[in-house]
Amino acid sequence: VLVGITDTVFEESIAVARYAAEQGADAVVLAPPYYLSASQPELLDYVGAIVAQLPLPLVVYNIPVLTKVAFEPETVQKMTQFERVVGVKDSSGSIPYLRKIVACLSQRPDWSLLTGRDDLLAETICLGGHGGVCGGANVFPRLFVTLAKAAREGDVNLVASLEVQVANVGAKLYTVGRDMPGFIKGIKCALASLGICDDAMGGPLLRFDTAERQLIAERVSELQSDLAGILSD
Amino acid sequence: VLVGITDTVFEESIAVARYAAEQGADAVVLAPPYYLSASQPELLDYVGAIVAQLPLPLVVYNIPVLTKVAFEPETVQKMTQFERVVGVKDSSGSIPYLRKIVACLSQRPDWSLLTGRDDLLAETICLGGHGGVCGGANVFPRLFVTLAKAAREGDVNLVASLEVQVANVGAKLYTVGRDMPGFIKGIKCALASLGICDDAMGGPLLRFDTAERQLIAERVSELQSDLAGILSD
Repeated sequence: VLVGITDTVFEESIAVARYAAEQGADAVVLAPPYYLSASQPELLDYVGAIVAQLPLPLVVYNIPVLTKVAFEPETVQKMTQFERVVGVKDSSGSIPYLRKIVACLSQRPDWSLLTGRDDLLAETICLGGHGGVCGGANVFPRLFVTLAKAAREGDVNLVASLEVQVANVGAKLYTVGRDMPGFIKGIKCALASLGICDDAMGGPLLRFDTAERQLIAERVSELQSDLAGILSD
Repeated sequence: VLVGITDTVFEESIAVARYAAEQGADAVVLAPPYYLSASQPELLDYVGAIVAQLPLPLVVYNIPVLTKVAFEPETVQKMTQFERVVGVKDSSGSIPYLRKIVACLSQRPDWSLLTGRDDLLAETICLGGHGGVCGGANVFPRLFVTLAKAAREGDVNLVASLEVQVANVGAKLYTVGRDMPGFIKGIKCALASLGICDDAMGGPLLRFDTAERQLIAERVSELQSDLAGILSD
């Protein structure tokens, strides 16, 4: 269990990490502060200062679409000096970026390199990464586990056919809303339609309306049918 | 005195506003939550919900370069229904945007329309706005007060010559760092060189180094000479 501690205030990140540790989390995940953009030397100092106070190991999280600034590969390279950093989660969608992070793994073979994108899970593994924190895996975990396994085994035909299904999940669940919030709303709404959790969003974001929820529920049913043959035991 | 209460957490904004009210602030200033981007209907609901709980009047703050999402003019138009909203601060740098906000003033002649940009103070006033929250005014208040007065009086020749000086301030103080943090560091460092305040930044941002501070101090002296003739009594 990885818990996000990204915040614009250093002390708030520490406080959330302490709570996560008390609750039994395995590690925490940190993206750059996301109002004013720090420089790369500032981000390096920041991560060094925060790991010194964290009660759990840290996964560095690169998601420039939300934070505006990236942890550049040269900065991640320097973070290999921090023992308590144990991996990188990348949601940039950039294969060249991933390749540069893979290059850091020679200095830290203990690191985990995870993608945050459904559509790059297999590519991340094929390039030398380890797995993903994929939104769609909340709804269809077996699809993503099977895909990761196929990528690890080099079964390119199976990877190709499963990636079509992953794209299908995205086309059906992530297109109702807009941008990043729509993607999250789609996943939460799909989980709600399966009775797994409530689809309440943190304010000011609002859950989908009745018509949108109905549409998502229908699409989840369709996807279950689509995936039944592929993922049957 | 206007106090910023922008936050990704509703309750934190309220808490800062309460503290600001206790300390005697006149109003609070709120930009959109800046991690996940809310839609325009969500932002309208958000502002409506927050003004209902604020102990002070609210200035709506449009700064999409930092928040990714803007308060679109159509949304600001609808905010004229909120009595406790008393104005708009715009740092977008867009004259077409400013024009559309000026159009809202017919429904709310009590509103203040302020620019957040040094280089659009006169234009904002000429278009029907009221003034600015200009970074450079912290260092050279008389320059900006004189410029605002010239704009109000329609003295276009004086406006033109003072705007050259405003551009000169920016060229000298805002070019040492980078992007928005560099602009803020430049202002704080200039104020520190004048003995007005310390130039400490909120982490992870770091103040300018010794060489940069020396450069800013020299440029403040140059600007004081440049402005002496223009702004003498």
